[in-house]
Amino acid sequence: MSTATALAGRPDANLGVLRARALLPPVLRSWIERLGGELSQICGYQLGMYDVDGRPTGTVSGKLLRPAFALLCSAATGGRSEDVVPAAAAIELLHNASLIHDDIMDGDRERRHRPTVWARYGVASAILAGDALIALGFEVLASHRHPATAHSTAVLARTLRLLARGQESDLRFETESTVDPDECLAMMAGKTGVLLGCACRLGAAYSPGPPDLAERFERFGVHLGVAFQLVDDILGIWGDPAVTGKPVGADLRARKKSAPVVAALAAGTPASARLADRYACPGELTDAEVARLTEWVEEAGGRAWTLAEADRQVSAAWDLLEGLDLDDQARSSLATLTTQLMTRDH
Amino acid sequence: MSTATALAGRPDANLGVLRARALLPPVLRSWIERLGGELSQICGYQLGMYDVDGRPTGTVSGKLLRPAFALLCSAATGGRSEDVVPAAAAIELLHNASLIHDDIMDGDRERRHRPTVWARYGVASAILAGDALIALGFEVLASHRHPATAHSTAVLARTLRLLARGQESDLRFETESTVDPDECLAMMAGKTGVLLGCACRLGAAYSPGPPDLAERFERFGVHLGVAFQLVDDILGIWGDPAVTGKPVGADLRARKKSAPVVAALAAGTPASARLADRYACPGELTDAEVARLTEWVEEAGGRAWTLAEADRQVSAAWDLLEGLDLDDQARSSLATLTTQLMTRDH
Repeated sequence: MSTATALAGRPDANLGVLRARALLPPVLRSWIERLGGELSQICGYQLGMYDVDGRPTGTVSGKLLRPAFALLCSAATGGRSEDVVPAAAAIELLHNASLIHDDIMDGDRERRHRPTVWARYGVASAILAGDALIALGFEVLASHRHPATAHSTAVLARTLRLLARGQESDLRFETESTVDPDECLAMMAGKTGVLLGCACRLGAAYSPGPPDLAERFERFGVHLGVAFQLVDDILGIWGDPAVTGKPVGADLRARKKSAPVVAALAAGTPASARLADRYACPGELTDAEVARLTEWVEEAGGRAWTLAEADRQVSAAWDLLEGLDLDDQARSSLATLTTQLMTRDH
Repeated sequence: MSTATALAGRPDANLGVLRARALLPPVLRSWIERLGGELSQICGYQLGMYDVDGRPTGTVSGKLLRPAFALLCSAATGGRSEDVVPAAAAIELLHNASLIHDDIMDGDRERRHRPTVWARYGVASAILAGDALIALGFEVLASHRHPATAHSTAVLARTLRLLARGQESDLRFETESTVDPDECLAMMAGKTGVLLGCACRLGAAYSPGPPDLAERFERFGVHLGVAFQLVDDILGIWGDPAVTGKPVGADLRARKKSAPVVAALAAGTPASARLADRYACPGELTDAEVARLTEWVEEAGGRAWTLAEADRQVSAAWDLLEGLDLDDQARSSLATLTTQLMTRDH
């Protein structure tokens, strides 16, 4: 299947997202409440169940993107939604745990237009809240009586291990002057890829198909996860501040080694050298300097490389599903969701 | 069985400890190595596989107390050691993860006469190392193909949730002027009890006995865990610095709300009031003041309450095993290990 075909789909509200938003919040809420005490409050804040003053919002925020993919991969392979909800909830809980811990490590004070958990409740509570969400993730998955559960728990644990490895590479890259683009892609596969891969794999794991089908869906999800991260990195430099809610060139101001920068630095052009020199100098960047850095990244081919790589990852993902006998409606919804995420502006 | 009988036992090297030291290190090492990169180094440092300069020690340090209990509870109920090694390793990995994260939260810079992980490698790496060890714990357990594995994973996850809750209570107590002794015991059950309870439960879970036998061993382990923590709290005030490696009255200097202090504060005696006043005043304590605080805790009955409660917990533990048809040698080794831990000086 070509990328163009893969990206075709209806632009209306996505089946997977709708199902995730209908099925996940009650499950997530009941597990969060099981924590009890202050931890319930803090973890609930991260999931958008409580506002910054601790008042219930009556909902759960976040895109529930990973649960949506899990539900669609389940539907595509003939699984039943109710079988896959615990796995989808587990992945969403682990995703939020990693956000809480990553925000501490990265020193990020804001997420989704609100203070991050450590900025609001302190580092100690944030470490504990992340641990509690990891515990809940494994508990909701392991408590589900189903033949696929034992192996799924091992897959979830391996995913958490690879996430830690990915975050380690990311932290290390920030202190290195140059990073190999392939290493950058491997880090992205670890940080963003494995969790979406896990969502797609566990989505298929509770279906009647053969075990290698689930593994194929995992690789599908890893490629898509990398593609989405590449788009994120594009938005981190060229995103419209009015839409993203972040300042112009936010990632350049923070001197992040995001994919376009890594590609630009590795390109060996005169613009690469200028970029490397300026990135190595400490001190806050002016708006004019950010604009100049943005031009250099583009001139050195960083943007073009990133867009081409995102396209390549999406193609590689869909190639894996080629020739499989999948439910048409679910396959189409997967394609729609992919398109929406690849063409998003925030 | 009376406490006196329960505490009887041979003082020679314990069967459980010997088995744990023979069986666990190769398993722990191979999983730690699977992490790869810097994380392998940092997690290996926590487990004593590497020294402070990163050189391999050729061993794994730590008492391996929880694995020893898991192996003894397995032997007591007719289980096979090899079936229970993954669960024992999982619990040891989770225990180390919680030590790493607790040390960050508590600001403790030294453990086992070495810098703690965050003091040696920084907070970001320490958060990540804890997460990686949690991941490994679930992975080693969930990868074990055995009918008991699915449920054991749920038990391990619940344990991690309760650990987070216990640590939350502990952090909260430090900011409260008085703490109810029952709340203190509940916190200890959460912080130290549940992990030993989990070790004993999973030890029995891979045995041929009925499921409620494993639950009984869990309650046995929770009581023992609380008893050991109470002894720890006694040593934190009255321990011999030459043996414990900590300054005289270490927990009083840090104004910890350990069990003897909580009991003394709640006793309503004149010494309780003096202790409360001094605990509320900021500033470093002189040696003379520490000596006076120590006397007040004793005068208010804090030491006597703690020792009596430890004895009560040990009795409650052994009452649970009364009348059970257990392997004699393993039961005797469990009793020996209990005695050694209750009468230890560090």
